[in-house]
Amino acid sequence: MSEESNVILLDFFASPFCLRPRIALEEKGVTYESREEKNLLGGKSELLLKSNPHYQKVPVLLHQGKPVVESANIVAYIDEAWPSNPLLPTCAYARSQARFWTDFIDKKVFDAGRNIWLSKGEELEVAKKEFIETLKVLEGALGEKDFFGGDSFGYVDIIAIALTSWFLAYEKTGGFKVEDHCPKFSAWIKRCLERPSVAKVYPDPENIYHFVLVLRKMNGIVD
Amino acid sequence: MSEESNVILLDFFASPFCLRPRIALEEKGVTYESREEKNLLGGKSELLLKSNPHYQKVPVLLHQGKPVVESANIVAYIDEAWPSNPLLPTCAYARSQARFWTDFIDKKVFDAGRNIWLSKGEELEVAKKEFIETLKVLEGALGEKDFFGGDSFGYVDIIAIALTSWFLAYEKTGGFKVEDHCPKFSAWIKRCLERPSVAKVYPDPENIYHFVLVLRKMNGIVD
Repeated sequence: MSEESNVILLDFFASPFCLRPRIALEEKGVTYESREEKNLLGGKSELLLKSNPHYQKVPVLLHQGKPVVESANIVAYIDEAWPSNPLLPTCAYARSQARFWTDFIDKKVFDAGRNIWLSKGEELEVAKKEFIETLKVLEGALGEKDFFGGDSFGYVDIIAIALTSWFLAYEKTGGFKVEDHCPKFSAWIKRCLERPSVAKVYPDPENIYHFVLVLRKMNGIVD
Repeated sequence: MSEESNVILLDFFASPFCLRPRIALEEKGVTYESREEKNLLGGKSELLLKSNPHYQKVPVLLHQGKPVVESANIVAYIDEAWPSNPLLPTCAYARSQARFWTDFIDKKVFDAGRNIWLSKGEELEVAKKEFIETLKVLEGALGEKDFFGGDSFGYVDIIAIALTSWFLAYEKTGGFKVEDHCPKFSAWIKRCLERPSVAKVYPDPENIYHFVLVLRKMNGIVD
């Protein structure tokens, strides 16, 4: 097996969950092949179905042919398989806090955002309120620190920044600005976007917005 | 702070999620104080609300006064804070698989079981089918191994065995036997129950059944 195909990411340009391993691999300086799952909304590749039989979802990381699935799990795997430039802290308590916030983000942020673009009218107002309240909790967790990881960009930063690639779509479909409600969280987003690992693989939020417009039509939210 | 109060578990006898840290602490030989949250269905203790403000749920592990919440996260913390007798494997790939199955169990097993005791009639039949299908997937993951951890009892075994404390309640309310459908999974349960760490803190399944009968009445499933 060639060095190039040693690490393969089954990927999708608009998936915030695929963005997580992309950033982590960049942070570690790992050369990898991104294989775009072009027909994600239709037929999925045989390799995807075989590698992730239980969920049949991207991202999948194939390392020396062995699949790792679920994005937060993949980032933790990348951190352990390429241990230089650690993403998770070493202290047991700090690690438990990083896992807690990862789980909180996974349970709350994407679904809260989904409720924005999947709704209109009064439901949309409720969805926006819940989304902003969730970000305010995260803003509280960030506190006065530069990053969730403290002074340096780390595991929770990767988990969270990936989801922000959809924020422009939420803002445009919801008619609001995250910055007006959560200025410190917005400043954290800007700091992360300046990071080379993030800048290199972060999608153009306008493209995500156009993708979300297609999803809104598919879901009958708009004509 | 005395040695006894150095490790406190905010606990509830019937919670399968509280059972996880109890088993992990026994595996590590850690002396701890279990503080039963007696009014979990009514008023919660100030300490619980303060320690787990975002979810307000047991279990909470307080170690030297610092709270760790969410049961799988607590077990991982216990494994890292008391590193002798490791519960998680050391190999990065095996660790990623352990995290995957933990997440799968958390997403599927308890909710599938809950659908059994919360339903009747046709819904109950669907719930039983889904529950058994989930266990069959786990049985496949176990394969011919003695434990999910391989030859020895480990992290995923703790995550999964804790949930089996409710199986008698599912069987009695659902009118079926797990053993009839998943003999290898049942044999794994028996092996785990022989382990001193499990035997010492595993609740009497008859007590869980009586607790579930109360829940069924409260939820209007039975008169």
